[in-house]
Amino acid sequence: MVASIIDGKRLGAEIEEELKSSVSLMASSSRAPHLVVVIVGEDPASHVYVRNKERACKRIGIRSTRYDLPEDSDHGDLISLIRKLNDDREVDGILVQSPLPSNFDEIGITEMIRPDKDVDGFHPINLGRIVTGRTDGMLPCTPSGIMRMLESTGESLRGKKALVIGRSRIVGMPAALLLTQRGIDATVTIAHSRSEDLESLCRDSDILIAAVGKPGMVRKEWVKEGAMVIDVGINRVEIEGRSRLVGDVEEGASEYAKWITPVPGGVGPMTISMLMTNTVRAAESRLH
Amino acid sequence: MVASIIDGKRLGAEIEEELKSSVSLMASSSRAPHLVVVIVGEDPASHVYVRNKERACKRIGIRSTRYDLPEDSDHGDLISLIRKLNDDREVDGILVQSPLPSNFDEIGITEMIRPDKDVDGFHPINLGRIVTGRTDGMLPCTPSGIMRMLESTGESLRGKKALVIGRSRIVGMPAALLLTQRGIDATVTIAHSRSEDLESLCRDSDILIAAVGKPGMVRKEWVKEGAMVIDVGINRVEIEGRSRLVGDVEEGASEYAKWITPVPGGVGPMTISMLMTNTVRAAESRLH
Repeated sequence: MVASIIDGKRLGAEIEEELKSSVSLMASSSRAPHLVVVIVGEDPASHVYVRNKERACKRIGIRSTRYDLPEDSDHGDLISLIRKLNDDREVDGILVQSPLPSNFDEIGITEMIRPDKDVDGFHPINLGRIVTGRTDGMLPCTPSGIMRMLESTGESLRGKKALVIGRSRIVGMPAALLLTQRGIDATVTIAHSRSEDLESLCRDSDILIAAVGKPGMVRKEWVKEGAMVIDVGINRVEIEGRSRLVGDVEEGASEYAKWITPVPGGVGPMTISMLMTNTVRAAESRLH
Repeated sequence: MVASIIDGKRLGAEIEEELKSSVSLMASSSRAPHLVVVIVGEDPASHVYVRNKERACKRIGIRSTRYDLPEDSDHGDLISLIRKLNDDREVDGILVQSPLPSNFDEIGITEMIRPDKDVDGFHPINLGRIVTGRTDGMLPCTPSGIMRMLESTGESLRGKKALVIGRSRIVGMPAALLLTQRGIDATVTIAHSRSEDLESLCRDSDILIAAVGKPGMVRKEWVKEGAMVIDVGINRVEIEGRSRLVGDVEEGASEYAKWITPVPGGVGPMTISMLMTNTVRAAESRLH
């Protein structure tokens, strides 16, 4: 079997097209959605991510504002900015770029953002609503992007065995919660660094979500014949003196899988499209 | 193998003994913890549950107050009561007995309770904090009781395969989240009514949590030799003309398991002990 590619870039572009029409409708009837991105310090990768988000806003017609706080800012500075943005009726979405400098309590900061402006979907109340079966709110972007990619294949997930490798609050845990929801109905296993015999867990799984950040840690021959593989890892490695991006799943897994996401061009672009979706949704619920 | 019994009644009594000393210390230095239970309507089973909770409070020295709202109360009545209790500095824990009459939005009501007084642990922010890895707050009572029972065996759960059958917001989902936590480190599978081949999932599991509410749905021979079995089901059935309580796991599973909980006398009493634990914890964080 040679897997079909789940093209995150193309799917993301389709989603952006839909968003564009909603945004232009909103812009003409009241105002465009407005996303505020806050970045603290000079981490180069974070600046790249933020720029990509700003570009996506521009493509779609979403207004974006960026606050740059210096590296030596303290909690108080960031908290008063968040309070101001929480209260600002012209702001629909607030995103504080991760990671924050080490002196910040990142989870504490996440809880300061108004849940209905939390376009990252990281606020515990938004995560907790998924536990209670509500999926109409601000969903974390990477997990909801994963769901959209799986749905785009047209395959039913009902009763299928899904394995999520990685238990982060941002990807693995919420992805497992979404896959378990009524209506999706996968049988979900969450594995992690302490799990025994990852190989046989993989071999037994119809859906495989790898979200650990270790290049090639899922060996290609572990992939079950006909499986759907979502590779969340984006790892920079040196191969023969050249820098390349590779996933958590070893290259060549497409010989076994029926569906697979590429790296890059898979989960990455979908995450940004889902951020845009959350921003438009937040604006809609504010303006309607 | 004949399983050892995980005696929820005895373990619960031990926990109550510890709580008693904390409570008497608090009572002498400031005031006793105070739990308010709200019940709407005349559902007989609910009244039995509430009485059991009041009795537990009495045993431990926790002050309890009960509000009885008539069956035909509306949302507004309940909401204004909750608001009053949220603001009352003399109230540490608020519990609204489930189920509410059908005209109530139960999840909406849950979100009205102040998270730090939510001794049931059902508020989405409390559930969401578990997703983010925080387990020092108000944990839902049945899942935290399950964890205490597993820990009481002295067995390590690290890397073990745990199967949670049932995906309710109250039991199955949070139990799966707790088992996945760092430090516990089980490899957790969540199964449900749509899962295929439950039998082989069970046969493959070192830890089996049955929380579906179907008498004997887990057949005894499905239990892996040496497994730990937590039976959350409490089902009333007629056997030879007599009414009896049975679990979700078929009788006789103790021939296979290494550890098993009885029904009744297993998870039931532990749930109440965990409610008492949450109430004392809520009072401590308020008074300290």
